[in-house]
Amino acid sequence: MLLRMSTLFLRTLREDPADAEVASHRLLLRAGYIRRAAPGGFTWLPLGKLMLDRVTEVVRAEMAAVGAQEVQFPALLPREPYETSGRWAEYGDGIFTLADRRGAEFLLAPTHEEMFALLVRDLFSSYRDYPVLLYQVQTKFRDEARPRAGLLRGREFLMKDAYSFDLSDAGLEASYARLRSAYQRVFDRFGLDYRIVRASSGLMGGSASEEFLATTEIGEDTYVACDACDYAANTEAVVTPPGVATDPAARPAATTHDTPDTPTIESLVALANARRLGGRSDWSAGDTLKNVVVTVTPPGGKAAPLVIGVPGDREVDLKRLAAAVEPATVALFDDWAAEPSLVRGYIGPQVLAGLGIRYLVDPRVAVGTAWLTGANAPGRHAIDVTHGRDFVADGTIEAASVHVGDPCPACGAGSLTMRRGIEIGHIFQLGRRFTDAFQVDALDAAGRPVRPTMGSYGIGISRAVAAIAEQHHDARGLVWPAAVAPCDVHVVAAGKGEQVAGALDLGAQLERLGLRVLVDDRAGVSAGVKFTDAELIGVPTVVVVGRRFAEGFVEVRDRASGARADLTVAEVADAIATRTRVSGVPSA
Amino acid sequence: MLLRMSTLFLRTLREDPADAEVASHRLLLRAGYIRRAAPGGFTWLPLGKLMLDRVTEVVRAEMAAVGAQEVQFPALLPREPYETSGRWAEYGDGIFTLADRRGAEFLLAPTHEEMFALLVRDLFSSYRDYPVLLYQVQTKFRDEARPRAGLLRGREFLMKDAYSFDLSDAGLEASYARLRSAYQRVFDRFGLDYRIVRASSGLMGGSASEEFLATTEIGEDTYVACDACDYAANTEAVVTPPGVATDPAARPAATTHDTPDTPTIESLVALANARRLGGRSDWSAGDTLKNVVVTVTPPGGKAAPLVIGVPGDREVDLKRLAAAVEPATVALFDDWAAEPSLVRGYIGPQVLAGLGIRYLVDPRVAVGTAWLTGANAPGRHAIDVTHGRDFVADGTIEAASVHVGDPCPACGAGSLTMRRGIEIGHIFQLGRRFTDAFQVDALDAAGRPVRPTMGSYGIGISRAVAAIAEQHHDARGLVWPAAVAPCDVHVVAAGKGEQVAGALDLGAQLERLGLRVLVDDRAGVSAGVKFTDAELIGVPTVVVVGRRFAEGFVEVRDRASGARADLTVAEVADAIATRTRVSGVPSA
Repeated sequence: MLLRMSTLFLRTLREDPADAEVASHRLLLRAGYIRRAAPGGFTWLPLGKLMLDRVTEVVRAEMAAVGAQEVQFPALLPREPYETSGRWAEYGDGIFTLADRRGAEFLLAPTHEEMFALLVRDLFSSYRDYPVLLYQVQTKFRDEARPRAGLLRGREFLMKDAYSFDLSDAGLEASYARLRSAYQRVFDRFGLDYRIVRASSGLMGGSASEEFLATTEIGEDTYVACDACDYAANTEAVVTPPGVATDPAARPAATTHDTPDTPTIESLVALANARRLGGRSDWSAGDTLKNVVVTVTPPGGKAAPLVIGVPGDREVDLKRLAAAVEPATVALFDDWAAEPSLVRGYIGPQVLAGLGIRYLVDPRVAVGTAWLTGANAPGRHAIDVTHGRDFVADGTIEAASVHVGDPCPACGAGSLTMRRGIEIGHIFQLGRRFTDAFQVDALDAAGRPVRPTMGSYGIGISRAVAAIAEQHHDARGLVWPAAVAPCDVHVVAAGKGEQVAGALDLGAQLERLGLRVLVDDRAGVSAGVKFTDAELIGVPTVVVVGRRFAEGFVEVRDRASGARADLTVAEVADAIATRTRVSGVPSA
Repeated sequence: MLLRMSTLFLRTLREDPADAEVASHRLLLRAGYIRRAAPGGFTWLPLGKLMLDRVTEVVRAEMAAVGAQEVQFPALLPREPYETSGRWAEYGDGIFTLADRRGAEFLLAPTHEEMFALLVRDLFSSYRDYPVLLYQVQTKFRDEARPRAGLLRGREFLMKDAYSFDLSDAGLEASYARLRSAYQRVFDRFGLDYRIVRASSGLMGGSASEEFLATTEIGEDTYVACDACDYAANTEAVVTPPGVATDPAARPAATTHDTPDTPTIESLVALANARRLGGRSDWSAGDTLKNVVVTVTPPGGKAAPLVIGVPGDREVDLKRLAAAVEPATVALFDDWAAEPSLVRGYIGPQVLAGLGIRYLVDPRVAVGTAWLTGANAPGRHAIDVTHGRDFVADGTIEAASVHVGDPCPACGAGSLTMRRGIEIGHIFQLGRRFTDAFQVDALDAAGRPVRPTMGSYGIGISRAVAAIAEQHHDARGLVWPAAVAPCDVHVVAAGKGEQVAGALDLGAQLERLGLRVLVDDRAGVSAGVKFTDAELIGVPTVVVVGRRFAEGFVEVRDRASGARADLTVAEVADAIATRTRVSGVPSA
């Protein structure tokens, strides 16, 4: 492949576009890879399309290497299967739906678990057919409320979605491990610095789930990482190490105290210390038990109040709470008139069992722990309120906010830090949610039905392009890793006449060696502008056909390091081909 | 590439699916290339996806060969540019539209003239930038009222759409010619028998337009072809040779006659002959002038009645009429109360000028021709009503039905036949409709603005797969042309053990030679079933590793001719690689 800048459909921009906040968006626009075409919708210009294709090729190659077979589903699908699985309602506003001319409802499907399950049911019937691993590469649509950051959060994007079907949980675990390794190879080939982060499985259900996050400060996803071990998780998936259970009877009896005007933790702690409640003046927020009332609605079920108890130095994190109760939905409780026994600002767990209200606590609120908490009367709190004696929680819930410095739930020794990343991949052990919904069965050797278990595995292909750009640029422009660069070498004719002819000739030689070549053969463009464009565009190797060309020399520049070397025209083609192959570029 | 049938995600069907009326639909389903997933939406199974990719590769290669550059637009686009061009309204029910969560309107764009014009305006400003030729390969959506015939008329399909931008009409003609040749090469490589048919340019506007139709009886598109020359046109584009003008004064004066109960041409002719009107008893429908009243509404304008005069042996063809008045829309006139002077069933053109009603005639109704036509009174007709004396038409219109046997408008010598085909490509000289709508200008050498002129060029990629299947099958299954077959060779292990190992070994050798190989290594499947599947699947060359394998021989079968030959295992790999390359398959 040889592209000539003189005819390439490309215009670079000298100035940063006004609305591009992040580096990938700014540089992909400036270097002529993409153009905005719609709210959250981008056009891939020729260089961008080449790069998108190379990224896709890497994904396809690694999918084939683990035996995944490529298919292609429609994107526009009828409502019915998504109704059966329950996801039509779960998706809510996040997807695009439409009606055809007869009023039949369709969606532009963000993922295809339903359709893959139906297809496998359609084609396969025997245990001998399993396991099977299928994938597609497809344009996806999402009704993003606030499209932003260019390719990072758009309304139309390219995704690879894969699905595994196994007959046993062990088989699913093996498929999951195989895909996890394939994803590592994909992102390694992309040259990305990334973390594999434990994730809550969200709407998908299922037992295990991990996200691949390209680490960057501008990432939309927050995750926690241990400063001592390799533990990393998104906040929804952080598991709190449980507090140590002790004998509740060993605690002093609970006592109730007047605590006027203390509806907040801060005011309560100040008053407790001022009045030396229980003889102490070292009360802190962590000694208090905060009780938050919410309303939980199970799918198709009735809303019911739930009280959540967390140590007073933490908030209830609504994202963690939502993940913890899924597929039920949760809202803050506001019908105080309906529950007059709940004294707002002074709620204590002591009365909840009597009121028939469910009570779940943070795992730190272990049996035997004693708390300063509400006494269920206006302006009254109690101390030494002890779990297992003065109240018994109905269970624990992961809803408390995660704080920097919290102990690592994996190693115990380290403490947690907060980091940011771009979600570039997500893998799920889905389980049987969808095979149950569509009654997918395989007959075993004895003719008995076995229900397959599914995994689901996604890579955001267009988003990966942006993630690579975020991690591979400098002040002058993009600096593509060799394996995904749109071209292998960028030959710049610094002067006119002989140098342009020389550049095109060298380009043709490099092309014959199997390289992807971009030649800047533009007339009427200065060498300076050509060099600036080459640095903006970011092809890994730049060859300058310049002043020394008459003596038989060209200059080879490494875009990443800036290193320069003069080589003879006779040796440069082989040298670059070798260099490029060594750095990991397939030759055709 | 080597695929093993033992693990391939494929199930062939013995029986014809009930709802598949055409051969391509039936065989692509039975051979496991596609599965229905939605109304008018199909899933490409692995073999089908491979084939779709090969067909796409051919299109991409021929686009690159004429210098077209690939880009990729979003499919989901805001209403606004399509409103500006007027196509939002013109598309009507035929496209899918939707509103996002904020109520903003979008469409799933069937073609992208608007967006390409805007993009070229965005990037290009100088005459030096032109001409430019861009294309994309994209999934398109269409709200098809009656999806049918499998891939031939679906709601979601793959298309290549290309757009040329030139600064002069001569440039557009050159671009058009270049694309026309590229299309011929594409369809030749597909192994398709096709006709290039003059087309009306329809909603696109513009001056020249041709369709590429794959010839087949099951095609939805009817076209006419001359039995003597190479003229071919779709019925909307047929141009009627005008009648010869003569001196109206040479005709006898018109006379009016009682013709009770003759509201139809048939009843009128019977009566005219029975009563020997004008002394003749050889009246035929072709001697009468039929006047049909319609209502024409220009875009954004007011509806007005129009009367169309055609010889009574022809109908007004509504498709031809619609094409003739575009971009205005047309409906049958039904507001007779509003035009009491129009006497239904007895309308003659004599009074139309006086009524201020526009009158257009078929080109056969030349000046000086005389007709039996209505006398604008119930039960009354007139004879010798002569164009240029008794009435003067406001112009001609191509609205009369085209009949088998009509004289060829190109050579005059031959006569027209009616044929059917599948539209696989369409090329347009669009002109400046879209560059005018978006004020796309280039500055010429003197700094004066020049408005570029556009061409638009489409290939239905998924539809082409079906067209190839329609033309390349026999009673036993598909018979793919080598250039687009999903695999080059299908190696069948007829027996067990050594033969399976031999088949896999031979397959691996062929793969190393750069061939795409399918090996039927299934256990527990009889040789007969494997042969039947191989014929159904339609890979051009089948190699049977069977009984003579122990003696060192395999059998090579040509799927198309059925020819068989025994070759030694030692020579077969090279022989097949040579054979396959000769027949036009690229080697990697």
